[in-house]
Amino acid sequence: MRVVLATRNAGKIEELRRILAGIEVVGLAGYPDAPEVAETELTFAGNALLKARAIAAHTGQAAVADDSGLCVDALNGMPGVFSARWAGRHGDDEANLKLLLAQLADVPAARRGAHFACAAAVAVPGGEGRVAMGRIDGRIIDAPRGTGGFGYDPIFVPDGESRTTAEMPPAEKDAISHRGRAFRALAKILPEVTG
Amino acid sequence: MRVVLATRNAGKIEELRRILAGIEVVGLAGYPDAPEVAETELTFAGNALLKARAIAAHTGQAAVADDSGLCVDALNGMPGVFSARWAGRHGDDEANLKLLLAQLADVPAARRGAHFACAAAVAVPGGEGRVAMGRIDGRIIDAPRGTGGFGYDPIFVPDGESRTTAEMPPAEKDAISHRGRAFRALAKILPEVTG
Repeated sequence: MRVVLATRNAGKIEELRRILAGIEVVGLAGYPDAPEVAETELTFAGNALLKARAIAAHTGQAAVADDSGLCVDALNGMPGVFSARWAGRHGDDEANLKLLLAQLADVPAARRGAHFACAAAVAVPGGEGRVAMGRIDGRIIDAPRGTGGFGYDPIFVPDGESRTTAEMPPAEKDAISHRGRAFRALAKILPEVTG
Repeated sequence: MRVVLATRNAGKIEELRRILAGIEVVGLAGYPDAPEVAETELTFAGNALLKARAIAAHTGQAAVADDSGLCVDALNGMPGVFSARWAGRHGDDEANLKLLLAQLADVPAARRGAHFACAAAVAVPGGEGRVAMGRIDGRIIDAPRGTGGFGYDPIFVPDGESRTTAEMPPAEKDAISHRGRAFRALAKILPEVTG
């Protein structure tokens, strides 16, 4: 079996290869004209499916895509699908994190619950597509700690942990992360979709 | 009957006097030591009650307080109780509005529904307190219009309207606004609480 992962990020391709052992995973390097898919849906699952379908249609291959973000209880589950553009500009991790901390400045520890969520989708050309979800629960702390990971990792501490996900070794984080969980769940349903 | 309104804003006092005709409304001018109440609750009703109870306890009088904000569908109802500090600093209307527009930049017109909500609370010393809610439904436009009102008024267009609430004459806005509706509803239950 062969799937195209809707990314040009080598790290993400390696991660999926580890999780989907026995399945050939390629990125978009061989598809220079693949479309940039705007994440216009209001759910992680909607955006992941949107991307997987677009890449399946473009490549004629089974395609895998994901969308993920941070959901803060005190913000009704936001930033959510807006996680990467929370401060208004896409991909400015530092501004996003800083804004979130400022918004939560008066929110006491007992009300700083949050979770990371990931939707991993697979689609085949002309087919319906399937989505698997993964999440990791925890809380938002007052100030950043750690240099690993990306995005909101420096201010997120998983339940039962004292370290932020930015302070955990990558393999340890992968084992419990929303992305790891979603991709392992996806691996189980992949054969149903790709035949 | 006499009630203390938990504000030092003369405009808000006049507004409540118009709505609560026949009831003596005073502000906090006569209570220089009245506490500044932090809005630490995660609901408008919670914050309004918090303030009304604190001012009733401090003044020994029936007290009225309100909390209101903008709830955007695509943001799961946020900024909500964070409306006045959405960009991280309390009361920076321009930064709050600018951030919200940037966050919604990719959200199409059909998904830009929103409503203003207001909770108006009354409490008596040692008593339980009551809350009345008001809301006005509409949508968020792409760029500010109008100079009236405050906060998010320049980007909010009520259902059935083509003008923003910042483009409407104050009296016309008061007649349909979340605050007007909440205070008129409160007027009806005031006698039950103040006896």
